Amino acid sequence: MLKAEINTDVFKEAIDVIAALVTECRLHISPDGITTRAVDTANVAMISLTLSSGAFTSYDATETEIGLDINKMKNILGMMGKDEILSLELPDDGHKMEMAFGGYKYSIALLDVNTVRKDPNPPSIDLPGKAVLSGSDLNSSIKAASLVSDKIAFGINPEKPTFFMEADGDTDHINLELEKDQLESITPAEAKSLFSLDYLRDMGKVMSRSDRVEIDIGLDHPVKFGFEIAQGNGKVEFLLAPRIETD
Amino acid sequence: MLKAEINTDVFKEAIDVIAALVTECRLHISPDGITTRAVDTANVAMISLTLSSGAFTSYDATETEIGLDINKMKNILGMMGKDEILSLELPDDGHKMEMAFGGYKYSIALLDVNTVRKDPNPPSIDLPGKAVLSGSDLNSSIKAASLVSDKIAFGINPEKPTFFMEADGDTDHINLELEKDQLESITPAEAKSLFSLDYLRDMGKVMSRSDRVEIDIGLDHPVKFGFEIAQGNGKVEFLLAPRIETD
Amino acid sequence: MLKAEINTDVFKEAIDVIAALVTECRLHISPDGITTRAVDTANVAMISLTLSSGAFTSYDATETEIGLDINKMKNILGMMGKDEILSLELPDDGHKMEMAFGGYKYSIALLDVNTVRKDPNPPSIDLPGKAVLSGSDLNSSIKAASLVSDKIAFGINPEKPTFFMEADGDTDHINLELEKDQLESITPAEAKSLFSLDYLRDMGKVMSRSDRVEIDIGLDHPVKFGFEIAQGNGKVEFLLAPRIETD
Repeated sequence: MLKAEINTDVFKEAIDVIAALVTECRLHISPDGITTRAVDTANVAMISLTLSSGAFTSYDATETEIGLDINKMKNILGMMGKDEILSLELPDDGHKMEMAFGGYKYSIALLDVNTVRKDPNPPSIDLPGKAVLSGSDLNSSIKAASLVSDKIAFGINPEKPTFFMEADGDTDHINLELEKDQLESITPAEAKSLFSLDYLRDMGKVMSRSDRVEIDIGLDHPVKFGFEIAQGNGKVEFLLAPRIETD
Repeated sequence: MLKAEINTDVFKEAIDVIAALVTECRLHISPDGITTRAVDTANVAMISLTLSSGAFTSYDATETEIGLDINKMKNILGMMGKDEILSLELPDDGHKMEMAFGGYKYSIALLDVNTVRKDPNPPSIDLPGKAVLSGSDLNSSIKAASLVSDKIAFGINPEKPTFFMEADGDTDHINLELEKDQLESITPAEAKSLFSLDYLRDMGKVMSRSDRVEIDIGLDHPVKFGFEIAQGNGKVEFLLAPRIETD
Repeated sequence: MLKAEINTDVFKEAIDVIAALVTECRLHISPDGITTRAVDTANVAMISLTLSSGAFTSYDATETEIGLDINKMKNILGMMGKDEILSLELPDDGHKMEMAFGGYKYSIALLDVNTVRKDPNPPSIDLPGKAVLSGSDLNSSIKAASLVSDKIAFGINPEKPTFFMEADGDTDHINLELEKDQLESITPAEAKSLFSLDYLRDMGKVMSRSDRVEIDIGLDHPVKFGFEIAQGNGKVEFLLAPRIETD
């Protein structure tokens, strides 16, 4: 059971974040809030999202699991005004979700949870380096790398210390090096890994709205991007597997 | 013969309304103003438009009938500035129309009226229910219905009384119910009819600019949308045939 | 050798002007500034561009010639902020150009100059008529002509005197006649020539930003458009061959 109200802007932000990676997911609803964890079809990227009950203007729920068509949800979001109130209601039988906003009542069929991929287990990895910077700086570096290559390397130079990104095309090269005073913080450690820009482009777009993205990184290891949504009442983690450097 | 001047915004509005339904039409020019009535190629929707001489800043005409290529006119409209004066001139022999604005002189070939479909006779139908609301509310309901279906039902619930719209998709459902105080007025009567969204999408766009749209509706009958353009110097009626409900 | 800094807006303007005609060109770098002259693949249009050292915020160069991929440069321009400083550096060996802005360092492969078409010789032609008008007026007339035809005639009527443009479609006709007080200046002479709108559309877009375009024109002769960029520190000339009038 779920009966909740939420600002449409907050709800859009959460759905956009999920849509950067998957087209459907399982939502775990509990008295404390809503969580989801999903991997993309190629098993390269994972998203974990938590929206606490504090993100809602009113919230009443019991433990439930539902399957959500994220694409369909995005279309409905396009109809919602800014800064309106959206009410969500999930009866106990739970094959439909009722959404109401601005006089409209939508009744949306949910996906059978058994047809939606199970939650992945979060891998236990040790990422020694960390840099904290603005999402818009991070997104700009992803767009810059796209000009010359389909891969990007993120890394930390522990000597200076700096956080850097690099992209190597067939003929062209681009790099950006951010020093301590251009970052919110840096935890120096030997770190450099290569990633596919295909995944990062969509992630970059949603992260660009965040003032503060924590990047955890190692040596030829996955990268973890962590940031808050819903004025701190939501937390998102993107995990992205590295690509092997080939020539 | 026609020799007239009109504000470009007023002229654009009139052409846009016609373009929502047809790509060419017959214009009937008289000393009192200009009228047209046309049906779409599938005979599903009809438009009637009247632009009185008061919609023009200067107007001098005798009885004439011309064939107008509405698509071509839309392209030319794109060149016109806002709030300029457009002068129209139609010599007596009448195979060309001269249009002048902002220093430009266009000479446009007219269509042979005999190649343009004759004016349809307006059907005599009795539509007992009526609701009056803003065009933007009406257009939003059309866009909302498009999310779940290709059909929309409009109707009146005479008991409450409310004006409502409903759309039923394969799995999803949406409805909007507007009470007396959300409408400008309502004439209660048992009324509900189903319409194709294909036609309504284009009509909705042009109606969205109007503060006030009168909707006349019956039970499984056509719907009539009436609104004013050109600061009350023009009147438009859209008539749309119902679709049969099938399963 | 080149080591220079330039405002990104000024650099964008110069590259956009070249991109209106060619996708690659030879840049001639000297202590005085940078010049290029190129013709399009069909030999119909030519561009000459001069950017004096005064267009740069700092400039140090020796004589060099490089081959530039204009398309690639346009993509990189899209990453640059407005009113930033772009630094350009060309080592003596010169197969790469280093570009730095906003923390980013790009290393761009240059084209082998021998693979880029040689500079054309500027034809010596005598164009007796001249009109000077705003680039936005000129661009509007090009867009207006596109509505009815794929060719446009520019000319001067020395009697009145006026500068005029005309376009004749299969059925429609458009013309614009600008008198002395609508032009910055006019040098009357018998002049009228026909041009392909394919070329003029792209030229018109970049010229529309200029307050003042000098048009030199003759009778069935090429047309020359001259305008300044970089606050007078740059000069551009477009030369366009006429089309033969056929029926």
